[in-house]
Amino acid sequence: MHPMPIIECIPNVSEGRRPEIVEAIAAAIRSVPGVRLLDHSSDSSHHRSVLTFAGDAGPVKAAVLSMYERALAAIDLRTHSGEHPRLGAVDVVPFVPIDGVTMDECVKLAKAVAADVASRFTLPIYLYEDASANPARKNLEDIRRGEFEGLAAKMATPEWAPDFGPAAPHQSAGASVIGARMPLIAYNINLNTDRLDVAKKIAAAIRHSSGGFRFVKAAGFELKDRGIVQVSMNLTNYEKTPIFRVFETVKREAERYGVSILESEIVGLVPAAALNAVAEYYLQVAGFNAGQILENKLRASDNA
Amino acid sequence: MHPMPIIECIPNVSEGRRPEIVEAIAAAIRSVPGVRLLDHSSDSSHHRSVLTFAGDAGPVKAAVLSMYERALAAIDLRTHSGEHPRLGAVDVVPFVPIDGVTMDECVKLAKAVAADVASRFTLPIYLYEDASANPARKNLEDIRRGEFEGLAAKMATPEWAPDFGPAAPHQSAGASVIGARMPLIAYNINLNTDRLDVAKKIAAAIRHSSGGFRFVKAAGFELKDRGIVQVSMNLTNYEKTPIFRVFETVKREAERYGVSILESEIVGLVPAAALNAVAEYYLQVAGFNAGQILENKLRASDNA
Repeated sequence: MHPMPIIECIPNVSEGRRPEIVEAIAAAIRSVPGVRLLDHSSDSSHHRSVLTFAGDAGPVKAAVLSMYERALAAIDLRTHSGEHPRLGAVDVVPFVPIDGVTMDECVKLAKAVAADVASRFTLPIYLYEDASANPARKNLEDIRRGEFEGLAAKMATPEWAPDFGPAAPHQSAGASVIGARMPLIAYNINLNTDRLDVAKKIAAAIRHSSGGFRFVKAAGFELKDRGIVQVSMNLTNYEKTPIFRVFETVKREAERYGVSILESEIVGLVPAAALNAVAEYYLQVAGFNAGQILENKLRASDNA
Repeated sequence: MHPMPIIECIPNVSEGRRPEIVEAIAAAIRSVPGVRLLDHSSDSSHHRSVLTFAGDAGPVKAAVLSMYERALAAIDLRTHSGEHPRLGAVDVVPFVPIDGVTMDECVKLAKAVAADVASRFTLPIYLYEDASANPARKNLEDIRRGEFEGLAAKMATPEWAPDFGPAAPHQSAGASVIGARMPLIAYNINLNTDRLDVAKKIAAAIRHSSGGFRFVKAAGFELKDRGIVQVSMNLTNYEKTPIFRVFETVKREAERYGVSILESEIVGLVPAAALNAVAEYYLQVAGFNAGQILENKLRASDNA
C-alpha cells in the first residue's frame, strides 16, 4: 500500500559552457527506467551545471553511474576554470530522502554508490554531511578547500585520505564528494523596517554559527527598492529545526526593536512534511499522521 | 506537465447486509481503467454502504454508470429497511474536486452523469449542493425528507419535479441525488475545561446555523473519560471558511471564559491544500504556490 520510495539526487558537474555535453549527461540520467529528471540548469560563469533527478535507490544508483561515465569522458579539469570552487569533474553528489525513505537508507546508498564509482572509475571519493562520521568532513567547503589544483598536495596528508578509491587525484577528474543530506529550504522573512542593523542582529541570533539554531544559516540584507530589510535563511534540517520555531523566534526578536514581520517567502521547493509540521504546530494538532492527507491516500492506493 | 486531474466520488448505496452484492458493486467500479477504488464500508444496521473512488472525469463517469447497473439490478427498496434515511437504491452520489480540477468541472460532470443515469435507467434524479441552482435543493436532508416511501406523493407536487428523468419514482430504485461538493473536513478542538456550557456556547458562536461561519457545522460535547469538553465540527468548504480562521475564533471565544485550547484533532482525511493554507497564514507567506511543494513537482513530472 505504500507509494514508491523517493530519493532525490542533485549532482553538480563541472561543465556549464558546452550545452551538448550537459545534454548528453542529462540524457544518460533520463534513459534509466524508474528515474525522473526534474531539472537541469547550467551557469557559464560558474562553468558548472546542477541536475536534479529522483527515483528509488536502485534506479538512482544506476543513473549516477551512467552520469559519471558520460561526465568523466567529457570533462577535463586541467583545462577547466570558472568562478565556482570545484574539486572534481563530478564535483558533488548528494542523496536526499524525500518520501518513504529514511536518512539511514540514503547514507547506505551514498556509501554503496561511492564504493562503485571509486572502483569502476579509479576515482577518489570523500563522503560528506550525514554520510560522513568524521566531523572534519561533514562540510563540503572543508573538503573542497584547495580545489582541484591543490588536491594532490592535500591528499598526500594522512588526514585527507579518501573514504574510497586511490589516495591520489584522478588526472582529469580530480575527486568526488558523495553524501546524504536533508532537503534544504530557502526561507526569507521580510521586516516592516528599513533598519539593516535589525535584520543583521536577528540573523546573528538565529543562525548556528553565532549561537542560534543548529540547522539555520542566516544573513541580513537590504531590499532597497522596497525600503525594507530581510532575514535570508537556509534551513538545512526542517525536522530538527522546524520552520515554525524559526519564524516565532524571528518574530520575538523583532519585537525587541519595535519591528514586525511584513511577510515571509519560501524560495523554490519545500517538502510537504515541512509545511504540514507548521499547520500541526499552530493548530495544536494531536495524533496526526501523513496518511490522513487525502492526496497521500490517493497515491498510496496506486500500488494497492 | 500537470498531474492527472483527480475527482473523488463517494456513492452511498442502500445495501449493507449482503457482502456479495456490495463486493459486486465494488468490482464494477474497480474494473474501470483509470479509476481507483480507495475504500468501501458497509453498515448492516443502516443497511447501507459507502464506496470511495477517484480518477479523472471520463473514468469516474464510466464507473458510476457501471455501479448503477449493478446496484439497480440487485437492490429493491420495497423490501429494504434500515436505520439510515434513503430515497433510492443508489441514494446519493457526490463528486468532489481534489486536484487539478475546479468545482465548476465537478458540477458539469454531476449534470452529465445525472442526464445519462436518468435516460439509461429511467430514474428520476435530483441535483444537490453546488450542482443545484435551487436553494431549496442544496441540502441532501431536504431532498430526502419523506424517503422512498413518501416519494410518489412528494414527486406529485410541482416543486419536487426532478432535475432529470421521469416525474415519478422508479418502482424498485426510487430516485437518486447527484451533485458536487467540496471535501468535508471533520475537525475537533478539545478545551482545557470540563464545562460543557463553554463548548456549547463556542459551537453556537462559530456554526452557520446560529450566526457563525458559512461553512461550519458544530456542536459541543463532553469527553467524560478525559474530564474535558470538545467543540466538534464539520468544515464543509475549507477554501471559503479555512481551518485557521475557525481555530483562531474558537481560541478567542474560549479566552472569554478563561479557557484555553488543549489540542485539536483532524478526523480522517484532509486535503493537502487545507493544511498548506494554515502554514501560509501563520508564516505570513507571500506569493506561494502549490507547485513549490517538492512532492507536487515530482508528481507533475510523471506526465512530462
